[in-house]
Amino acid sequence: MSDRLLPSWREGTTRLAILAFLDRVEEIPPDERVAVFDNDGTMWCEKPNYPQLEFLLGELKAAVAADPSLGDKPEFHAILTGDRAALGELGIERVAFALVDLHTGLTPEEFNARVARFFAEARHPDRGVPYRQQRYQPMLELMEELRSRGFDFYIVSAGGAEFVRVIGDDFYGVKPEGAVGSQIDYEIDRLDDGTLRLVRTGKLVASGANEGPGKPPNIQRILGRRPVVAGGNSAGDAEMLEFAMSYDGPSLALLVDHDDADREYAYASKAGTFETDETILETAARLGWTVASIKNDWATVFAES
Amino acid sequence: MSDRLLPSWREGTTRLAILAFLDRVEEIPPDERVAVFDNDGTMWCEKPNYPQLEFLLGELKAAVAADPSLGDKPEFHAILTGDRAALGELGIERVAFALVDLHTGLTPEEFNARVARFFAEARHPDRGVPYRQQRYQPMLELMEELRSRGFDFYIVSAGGAEFVRVIGDDFYGVKPEGAVGSQIDYEIDRLDDGTLRLVRTGKLVASGANEGPGKPPNIQRILGRRPVVAGGNSAGDAEMLEFAMSYDGPSLALLVDHDDADREYAYASKAGTFETDETILETAARLGWTVASIKNDWATVFAES
Repeated sequence: MSDRLLPSWREGTTRLAILAFLDRVEEIPPDERVAVFDNDGTMWCEKPNYPQLEFLLGELKAAVAADPSLGDKPEFHAILTGDRAALGELGIERVAFALVDLHTGLTPEEFNARVARFFAEARHPDRGVPYRQQRYQPMLELMEELRSRGFDFYIVSAGGAEFVRVIGDDFYGVKPEGAVGSQIDYEIDRLDDGTLRLVRTGKLVASGANEGPGKPPNIQRILGRRPVVAGGNSAGDAEMLEFAMSYDGPSLALLVDHDDADREYAYASKAGTFETDETILETAARLGWTVASIKNDWATVFAES
Repeated sequence: MSDRLLPSWREGTTRLAILAFLDRVEEIPPDERVAVFDNDGTMWCEKPNYPQLEFLLGELKAAVAADPSLGDKPEFHAILTGDRAALGELGIERVAFALVDLHTGLTPEEFNARVARFFAEARHPDRGVPYRQQRYQPMLELMEELRSRGFDFYIVSAGGAEFVRVIGDDFYGVKPEGAVGSQIDYEIDRLDDGTLRLVRTGKLVASGANEGPGKPPNIQRILGRRPVVAGGNSAGDAEMLEFAMSYDGPSLALLVDHDDADREYAYASKAGTFETDETILETAARLGWTVASIKNDWATVFAES
């Protein structure tokens, strides 16, 4: 059956649960058909490193090649020498912001051009394919089924908003304003000729990273929509999935479980909601989320092109 | 000539300047065709009161009818008695936030329903027409000409994002994520049954009101786009217009001048950019903006339906 819905999803309770939801979409008023999906680990592979981290490491190497003294900065020295003890001592946040700070002073256009070049040139460290082929084929099929039923589809990532916006239209058909991510602050820079441009600061906006309990408020603030379908893969998505499930009508909260070491990666999802010690799979079971096991539910994992 | 472009625009230098810009649109790469327009006083009439203030005053009256003790609150007492001295002493910001605070604790859906009811019932205080007919017909025609040339059209208002989002699609064909406004903070409220909802706080997000120098960074943060066409009518739009004019290619910065006491209102635009004492018309002349005189350039002012 070449016209079978969701062809990359194997028969089973997960596929049935998704189809049962799709069958009920007509009960949802058209202007309430809103789907929000996390990106890293939900729409594309996030191992061995987040693609954004791969990008930043490449940027660091280029920056140090141009100015070797940068390599003496403690955060960069620890990264470049793989000094895990030093990285642990410095802390992930300080290291991450040192990398983000490499782009301080760039205009959005300059930053976007660097990201676009990364995606044009980079290959996945293990699979050797362009990042476009790191997208999960079953999730793309679900995205299309939702769209064909009148859903607006948005990406809600803990990563930088600009990073995902560069490939949002090409990878997911999502325009820049449909991508919510962690937000860098900008400053207005007035040049000598009187023209005005925006430049990146190295700081996040005051509301913080777009993760965990930050996602539902940001969805409201940035998109002005209320999700009834949400997809995620970690505790950073828990509140967003809960929010979708709290809709007064048919809803779908889908958790991707990374349990396939042969075809993708097997790794324990981070711990559950911030108030409990349960794993995200325990959270999913408790709250009735639909769990997509990569090993069992996906006949195909990656997009072919 | 019924098929004349921009039929509500009278012949003159302003119409010619707009047509000259439209003739050059092909020089702008399709994905850079981004237009941002202020709402109050640019796309619709903002006198005698901002429509959002009319809404809030109605909300205040309803709240006091339900709970007369509210009328003793100094800010509300001053409003309800028209006590200008008290209003001046309290300050516009404190009074405005007292009104905004009427909606603290509401969900976005509850708030949106109140705004929708306002627009369904309210009539303009002077003209007696629904607010939809307070839209400026010439600006709607310009909006359509831009769209027909591949522009994405966004609303960038100093008013509340949610307020304009309720009518954005109906009034301007702008989806919620295409409307940028001043942003209220939200809190997650977890109910006894475990479901999760968002509720309004009475506070603006830390980045402050979407006005003046706040507009360009918010356009980047919320929309992820870079405008090449901008429309405004006051100093609160100055940086946004400057930003559009700073584009490296054909651009258009359009300022609406309220100079028609007979058909609309005649009022001095607020003072110019924050660094100078010049009027906004002087700013427009200095920076080469295109000025639309309502009196001289618009054959028709308001949309008929």
